[in-house]
Amino acid sequence: MNYRMVGFILGRILLVESALMLLPLVVTLAYGESAVFAFCLPIVLSALCGAALGIRTPKNTAIYAKEGLVIVALSWLVMSLFGALPFYLCGSFSSYVDCFFETVSGFTTTGASILTEVESLEHGILFWRSFTHWVGGMGVLVFVMAILPLAGGRSVHLLRAEVPGPSVGKLVSRLGNTAKILYGIYIVLTLIEVLLLLAGGMSLFDSLIHSFGSAGTGGFSNRNLSVGAYDNAYFDVVIGTFMLLFGVNFNLYYFLLLRRFQEVFRSEELKVYLGIVFASVMMIAVNLLRFYDTFLQCLRYAFFQVSSIITTTGYATADFEQWPSFSKTILVILMFIGASAGSTGGGIKVARIVILCKSSYRDLQRMLHPHAVTTVRFEGKPLDEKTLRGTYVFFSIYMGIFALSILLLSLEHFDLITTFTAVTACINNIGPGLSLVGPMGNYSGFSDLGKLLLSFDMLVGRLEIFPVLMLLAPSVWKKPRRFSPSKKPCPYEIEEDA
Amino acid sequence: MNYRMVGFILGRILLVESALMLLPLVVTLAYGESAVFAFCLPIVLSALCGAALGIRTPKNTAIYAKEGLVIVALSWLVMSLFGALPFYLCGSFSSYVDCFFETVSGFTTTGASILTEVESLEHGILFWRSFTHWVGGMGVLVFVMAILPLAGGRSVHLLRAEVPGPSVGKLVSRLGNTAKILYGIYIVLTLIEVLLLLAGGMSLFDSLIHSFGSAGTGGFSNRNLSVGAYDNAYFDVVIGTFMLLFGVNFNLYYFLLLRRFQEVFRSEELKVYLGIVFASVMMIAVNLLRFYDTFLQCLRYAFFQVSSIITTTGYATADFEQWPSFSKTILVILMFIGASAGSTGGGIKVARIVILCKSSYRDLQRMLHPHAVTTVRFEGKPLDEKTLRGTYVFFSIYMGIFALSILLLSLEHFDLITTFTAVTACINNIGPGLSLVGPMGNYSGFSDLGKLLLSFDMLVGRLEIFPVLMLLAPSVWKKPRRFSPSKKPCPYEIEEDA
Repeated sequence: MNYRMVGFILGRILLVESALMLLPLVVTLAYGESAVFAFCLPIVLSALCGAALGIRTPKNTAIYAKEGLVIVALSWLVMSLFGALPFYLCGSFSSYVDCFFETVSGFTTTGASILTEVESLEHGILFWRSFTHWVGGMGVLVFVMAILPLAGGRSVHLLRAEVPGPSVGKLVSRLGNTAKILYGIYIVLTLIEVLLLLAGGMSLFDSLIHSFGSAGTGGFSNRNLSVGAYDNAYFDVVIGTFMLLFGVNFNLYYFLLLRRFQEVFRSEELKVYLGIVFASVMMIAVNLLRFYDTFLQCLRYAFFQVSSIITTTGYATADFEQWPSFSKTILVILMFIGASAGSTGGGIKVARIVILCKSSYRDLQRMLHPHAVTTVRFEGKPLDEKTLRGTYVFFSIYMGIFALSILLLSLEHFDLITTFTAVTACINNIGPGLSLVGPMGNYSGFSDLGKLLLSFDMLVGRLEIFPVLMLLAPSVWKKPRRFSPSKKPCPYEIEEDA
Repeated sequence: MNYRMVGFILGRILLVESALMLLPLVVTLAYGESAVFAFCLPIVLSALCGAALGIRTPKNTAIYAKEGLVIVALSWLVMSLFGALPFYLCGSFSSYVDCFFETVSGFTTTGASILTEVESLEHGILFWRSFTHWVGGMGVLVFVMAILPLAGGRSVHLLRAEVPGPSVGKLVSRLGNTAKILYGIYIVLTLIEVLLLLAGGMSLFDSLIHSFGSAGTGGFSNRNLSVGAYDNAYFDVVIGTFMLLFGVNFNLYYFLLLRRFQEVFRSEELKVYLGIVFASVMMIAVNLLRFYDTFLQCLRYAFFQVSSIITTTGYATADFEQWPSFSKTILVILMFIGASAGSTGGGIKVARIVILCKSSYRDLQRMLHPHAVTTVRFEGKPLDEKTLRGTYVFFSIYMGIFALSILLLSLEHFDLITTFTAVTACINNIGPGLSLVGPMGNYSGFSDLGKLLLSFDMLVGRLEIFPVLMLLAPSVWKKPRRFSPSKKPCPYEIEEDA
């Protein structure tokens, strides 16, 4: 383990976080609010810690798979620990654990809140709360790499460990450029959403908050009733559509930029993703016919909620807790499916679901026709056994952590639906579940231990399990017996940068 | 597809079923009850159909993997269709679908009932209802092979497709002998349980009913309050212990007979199985401290319920619906884990859980130490990739069918807990779930379509997915283009008999 390099990158991250916190400070000053100190202290603190760790580039900048995973997990932890300070210092939260939960929920783009009431919070605090979604959506390390490319070009380990989905294709040969392109698309899409919301008459502040929330597929709102507070069909359509757009693999936008339209239209994941959305919207809309006056209204609420849940954003325009069982069941299943790989959304990811289905189907075929040569193809390319195996292992560990979390959380004596959907909503980075944690509920009822467990689940979901588990493995922290670290790539989709 | 051979074996099965129905007829006559005709007609009908199909041995007795799977699935379907006739004819059930549900529930050893009241039923009918558990527990085809061994020795395809678990070891070289040994152990264990219950003062009829229910890990009782009706600690201990015993891999009993004690004590699955039972009993007992007067009482109820649920029997001595969330969550997780491979129990099976955990842990290790040579060992032997892959595929398809069933069943407008646990209890062959299908509830509220869906889930659970799915594959029913069928074994644990 290259501890110096781990510290160095964590230092860089803290410097970036310090800079990011200047934005909410500006908002606080602009509104003449009281939380100035609540931002200044964390800004200075993370700048100092960051400078101490991140100023001097270590001699040995080599990073291997192990370091990559550990750095990603630690970065998210450290970012959240420091990012929680403004909440703690502003006095609107009752404990540091609550602040930590809210920050993890922000960075992981979950959007689960312990606040029972948000409209009384200061603008600066609300801005920081939603801005964490925007930063966490595309990834903290992607951001760091976009502005501070590392020497040595080993950073693919970081990108692969942070970007969701079964595999990450490098868009261009230099990784720093990949990060810049991804962030470029992200910024432009966010800006368009802000402009469209402004055009509909939403205030600038509210437009920013809801654009951050949908861009990061997070779900924090500055209204107690979420997007439903506006009761405005135009906003529903704009936010609903942009949530869907941010749930698409960002590589496809890059292909659009390059006018490689064929690759976009041929994308299997995109087709399945849109197909699931369409089918779910229609089924829920028909199921809701008795709940709303017209079919158009049913479609409006169904579209917004399906888009919000499959992208794991978590905004609500209706209290879907009141919807019939069939609609609620569809939403719970969508929570597990999640958005596309390489998007800002969470969940298992459509790509993995497709791979699991195709691979299972292939194996069933093999039982019937033992000699037929069958390969599983995805996005036009044959999938190697390594990726298939990785997907199965991911799914198994994911279900294991899921079951264990539910068991531990059930010690809190809530009803089973609350426990089950709280874990579902956190591990899939959605936010609202059902019952007590439903769209009109919140997470304030859980104990500190429960909140820490759910924070762990949010990190496990956002970082796709492996980096977080690495932190818990004792052998990661042992010094290697021999000097030379393994130079070959690990077999787990994480390869060295050429 | 060798249709003649499929028909031939189905005929044999019907002949056996006709003979089996003579037993409840004897009970009916002994008690001087009215259901004589309700048994005579099905006995004659299945004897005639069976004779028409099963008298003449086909010229070509070759069975391959495909035929094996199809025969197993069809056998269970046909057995259930004919087995439901006595229920239908006796007049105590309101529709044939109800009778079919009850019979599938019996043969698959689920124990889910649509009856709101069982104590008013005739003894003969109750005997047949519970006897289906006993027949289904060890397997219908195992039974047929035990008494009517097939010529050609191809029947390993049948055994492998019917006996639960990731792999079936042949105990002795001739398959008919394996079946006989398995049934021998099964009969002796059942008899011991009957004698112990009689010794405790239970009536002969009740002893038989509850021994059938625990031997097959089924769970039908002739009391509305299940085993709780006796409120007798001795019965609780006897039935609780025997349920556990029937949840053990039967191969281990054979090793005991051969005095190969070492192989029993070394059994990894047995250790994990007993470990899970012990841990669950202790956790629930402590969790129940406020519910019962003494810790001993807590232990008694916890032990019985854990034993009943992990073996997927489904008997109850307490209304665990009223227990705290933590205890209920443990029970729901145990429902998924299930009993040992090669036992009469259902669920995913302890062996598969162990394989999934070990394999996932191995793959996590590989991420850290790419060059370490690691093989997954189970029961002292290295597991090949084929078995690992098969286990992953099983788990994925299992979860897929599970999610789809919940989605379809949610159309019935029950609460989510009822829907979720009804599917859980049926696909894992347990019987009672929570809420409306809790230990004091029943399945009468579902529509006919819902009952058929749950019957499908019970068959999928008992036959471990693949045979049932084969029935639905169009290519299974197509005539082969070339004459010679594939002679090589399929890669799916199903190998030709040597």
